[in-house]
Amino acid sequence: MLVIGRNPVIETLKSNPETIKKILLLNTLTDNKLKEIAAKAESKNIIVQRVPKQEFEKLLDKKDKSDGISQGIIADVQDFVYHKTTEILKSLDEAGKTKTTLIVLDEITDPHNFGAVIRTAAASGADGIIISDKNSVKVNHTVIKASSGATNYVKISKEYNIYQTLEMLKESGYTIVGTVLNSDTSIYSYEFPEKCAIVFGSEGEGLRKNIINLCDDLINIPMAGKIESLNVSVSAGVVLFEILRQRNY
Amino acid sequence: MLVIGRNPVIETLKSNPETIKKILLLNTLTDNKLKEIAAKAESKNIIVQRVPKQEFEKLLDKKDKSDGISQGIIADVQDFVYHKTTEILKSLDEAGKTKTTLIVLDEITDPHNFGAVIRTAAASGADGIIISDKNSVKVNHTVIKASSGATNYVKISKEYNIYQTLEMLKESGYTIVGTVLNSDTSIYSYEFPEKCAIVFGSEGEGLRKNIINLCDDLINIPMAGKIESLNVSVSAGVVLFEILRQRNY
Repeated sequence: MLVIGRNPVIETLKSNPETIKKILLLNTLTDNKLKEIAAKAESKNIIVQRVPKQEFEKLLDKKDKSDGISQGIIADVQDFVYHKTTEILKSLDEAGKTKTTLIVLDEITDPHNFGAVIRTAAASGADGIIISDKNSVKVNHTVIKASSGATNYVKISKEYNIYQTLEMLKESGYTIVGTVLNSDTSIYSYEFPEKCAIVFGSEGEGLRKNIINLCDDLINIPMAGKIESLNVSVSAGVVLFEILRQRNY
Repeated sequence: MLVIGRNPVIETLKSNPETIKKILLLNTLTDNKLKEIAAKAESKNIIVQRVPKQEFEKLLDKKDKSDGISQGIIADVQDFVYHKTTEILKSLDEAGKTKTTLIVLDEITDPHNFGAVIRTAAASGADGIIISDKNSVKVNHTVIKASSGATNYVKISKEYNIYQTLEMLKESGYTIVGTVLNSDTSIYSYEFPEKCAIVFGSEGEGLRKNIINLCDDLINIPMAGKIESLNVSVSAGVVLFEILRQRNY
């Protein structure tokens, strides 16, 4: 798998250098920032290769080429390793963490949104993200770039059957909280439980009916304007930081 | 200017139908949603043309073609009309609005982020967005699509000199509030003034020094995780909804 762009590569160098097979630099660029990254990689015995433009661009898809978002650096890393949901729960138990937040994404398809959710989750200290295997974007290099490397800081699991996973979370003491557009309960009046799994649906369709039926509570973000829905990463941000506020401030 | 995709076109049909010169539909698609949009447009005497794939794709750039985000519909609309900052202030005064929030974006370059900020601003009832003319993305069709049509619901002005604009806002009674990574004042302890202009800097660099020096207050979003910064649209969401919470809940 390729990790593309300076911040994502720097984050990977910091947190998971052992997963990097090699780093490729565009040989026409020689700025100090690239040199610094190269030096850091070489100090960790990672192979750094300077390659000509043609070879470099072969690795990128058209989009990355056209707007130059690769910033002259690509890391070839081992494929993304998902955690198991049960393992995430187990490690939280073992750490004795009493206030935990899991994020459940049901059929999110946009890689930029998924990446931004991961970044938001990492910044707000969420304990894990569970995605569905079906009709969903997976962790790929666009997601990693959009997450600004945050895939290294939050555990992500992938489940074939989100419905069964939510039932399992319930049995493990989690309150399943669905975010919807229509609910009498605002996130500001809702007292977030110590163990909660917040479910976000796809932007186009929202939460699926069978998922809504399974939720213990339904909450909404009260809007003051003429637009009634938010980008899913912004929704996640508003909800996750409200949880932080309630728990810490 | 082209507005691309179903939701953006629907939003434009709803709020600014008079700006639409014509609507183009991909003639290979005949689903009910497209028919519905076409009927609505025709009821407003807007020209609707069904065009073959080749002609349709000529209008789109490569990116839109490759991931199919046009969803078979393009509206050709009059160029985006910016408001003047002074006009925005005047209309707020005339409306007798006492609690107002302006968003100032200094050198935001990513169209998806800008669009998501606009959507967030519209949903949270912000009163206007001021962008800088220099080193910034302007309102284009990618921004409009990312905003999900919210460009119709929030006033946007474009200023050559953000510094002077902020000084003018100060003179008009606005408190200039900069969002930064390092500040002793959390958004949760900060009491947002009745008239505030919240300034967000570029993701890479943050706020520029001369802008920071001009701010009346500096605030930060306290993070609980290992990642220290958020996507600018998520930051804007967290701040704007915290303002809403303080004012209404």
